[in-house]
Amino acid sequence: MVGPRGTQPAIGFRADLDALPITEETDAEYASLNPGLMHACGHDGHAAGLLALARRLVAGPTLSEPALLVFQQAEEGHPSGAPRVLRGLPGYLLPPEFIGFHLWPELPAGVIGLRSGALFTSVAGVTIHVSGSTGRVHGTTFGKDAVDGLAIGHEIYTALSSMWSGRHPTDYQPVSLNIGRFEAGDEPNRVPTQCLMRGTLRALSWAEQDRAFEMIRETAAQIEGSRDARVHASFESGIRPPVRNAAASVSRVRAACGHLGIDCRVYPEHPVGVSDDFGWYLDDSKGVLFFLGCAAMGGSPDLHTPTFDFDESVLLNYVDVAAELARNPM
Amino acid sequence: MVGPRGTQPAIGFRADLDALPITEETDAEYASLNPGLMHACGHDGHAAGLLALARRLVAGPTLSEPALLVFQQAEEGHPSGAPRVLRGLPGYLLPPEFIGFHLWPELPAGVIGLRSGALFTSVAGVTIHVSGSTGRVHGTTFGKDAVDGLAIGHEIYTALSSMWSGRHPTDYQPVSLNIGRFEAGDEPNRVPTQCLMRGTLRALSWAEQDRAFEMIRETAAQIEGSRDARVHASFESGIRPPVRNAAASVSRVRAACGHLGIDCRVYPEHPVGVSDDFGWYLDDSKGVLFFLGCAAMGGSPDLHTPTFDFDESVLLNYVDVAAELARNPM
Repeated sequence: MVGPRGTQPAIGFRADLDALPITEETDAEYASLNPGLMHACGHDGHAAGLLALARRLVAGPTLSEPALLVFQQAEEGHPSGAPRVLRGLPGYLLPPEFIGFHLWPELPAGVIGLRSGALFTSVAGVTIHVSGSTGRVHGTTFGKDAVDGLAIGHEIYTALSSMWSGRHPTDYQPVSLNIGRFEAGDEPNRVPTQCLMRGTLRALSWAEQDRAFEMIRETAAQIEGSRDARVHASFESGIRPPVRNAAASVSRVRAACGHLGIDCRVYPEHPVGVSDDFGWYLDDSKGVLFFLGCAAMGGSPDLHTPTFDFDESVLLNYVDVAAELARNPM
Repeated sequence: MVGPRGTQPAIGFRADLDALPITEETDAEYASLNPGLMHACGHDGHAAGLLALARRLVAGPTLSEPALLVFQQAEEGHPSGAPRVLRGLPGYLLPPEFIGFHLWPELPAGVIGLRSGALFTSVAGVTIHVSGSTGRVHGTTFGKDAVDGLAIGHEIYTALSSMWSGRHPTDYQPVSLNIGRFEAGDEPNRVPTQCLMRGTLRALSWAEQDRAFEMIRETAAQIEGSRDARVHASFESGIRPPVRNAAASVSRVRAACGHLGIDCRVYPEHPVGVSDDFGWYLDDSKGVLFFLGCAAMGGSPDLHTPTFDFDESVLLNYVDVAAELARNPM
């Protein structure tokens, strides 16, 4: 906390600080000292930015209302660190607005990119289990009555694959399902009676996510009803919530940028099919997750690659904007 | 060997004698003494029949030419016992004709059922491996260039599933493919780059089997050519050969039945999509595998079930026919 004591913070800032299982291949003097681990998502930059903000707020005139600064672990993990942080905070310490940012090598250095509303998708787990009969099966005529769980699983996979494809002609999809694991049967010469599918569903809102669950449930029930098999669909909601930026917070960031003469753009044009556990912060509070450009001269390595690096000076734009927001709370 | 020494046997008889991992549920005094193991395929009957044949041949007038009696293990296994038996026999002990029989609870007790030509299918192993790119994938827009090995695997599965279905309006299919194991991906939230399918192909002749291999190979190559993935199909031929009865041997069994007044029928009407390692015996020699009815009053339990049982007296018909064939070799 920075600012006067005894009152609820008016604003919260969050930086994520976990590393990734990637071996760093930069020659930077500040390169990771731990082989096989690096801050390739820019999380060291996020934490450094938040630390610089703390110094700025402490050094400057006392804030009218306190600001909460959250250094959060395990953004990349499952379960993520965000719910642990938020559950750990007593209600009177929860600010009404949360600000997050992410370094972004596709934007010019120092440029702030932000969009109102849906930004990142939620992530939910989907498990579908098909259980056919256990009839022993030899070949073509024997075991005609055996129910092939793989064939039914395949039918479900086909139905689900067509469900969300081609619904939007643009780059992004409001809902997407990826089956990451598909498994059926034991032996090459036995009809597989069991089939297990596990995947992730991504959606831009809780409502769209729940509608997708319902569609999957209906598909499972329809196929179960037409076949002599049990089809069970189950869901793990809230692995990551959707990230939706509040229009009011977006306006405040834009105004601060205008005031400070920082290049601020609507970016990205469409929501992006990735996730960030910052969604947990926006689930109860207002707020915004924005992008801070860090493109280098001559091309930038992507996030999550061994050569990711950036010029620290871009962080000053974050510090300037964040300090402006803290000094002029909602 | 039964009969005069020093000459090549004119005919061979084979009984299979392995048990199955099934717990016997008959109250018979001759029920299995080994819990979890029983002769539910009637193999104890086959062996008893062959033993009775040996007694009959030894007791009767000396044969004009020797007969070879083979008690063979591991008919049910993979690798099966048949190639071991056949490789173990020196060429001068291989008869030009082999006779096998199988108890069959769908035929009336004592009736002999036989058909000329294709009877049982071969069994071959089919393995298809799809290997897509290893691009890291998050969601809907990231990793668009990643190749989903599961999607390609399902495309192949669909193509193969339609390949041999509906080609014949009858009960049996000359070629069938069963995918018994299908596996793709590791984690619910990663696009699966690898997909493995393992199955068995059944065909009524080597030529049909090899044509099916070729069709699978072409499908794999086509799909590989249209996608940025490696698709590899491999085959294990000869797990079981097809069982094809020689017309000459079928005629000889039919003639013997006529002579002995034993009810002999064309059975089954169509080839059956199961396998028997007796195919190995017929691969180099002529011969026949015929059915010996063992239906009981009031319905018969199926082969390979815990209550399978039969009236031993039906074996006498086998002994009569086999002795007739041994006394009148080709």
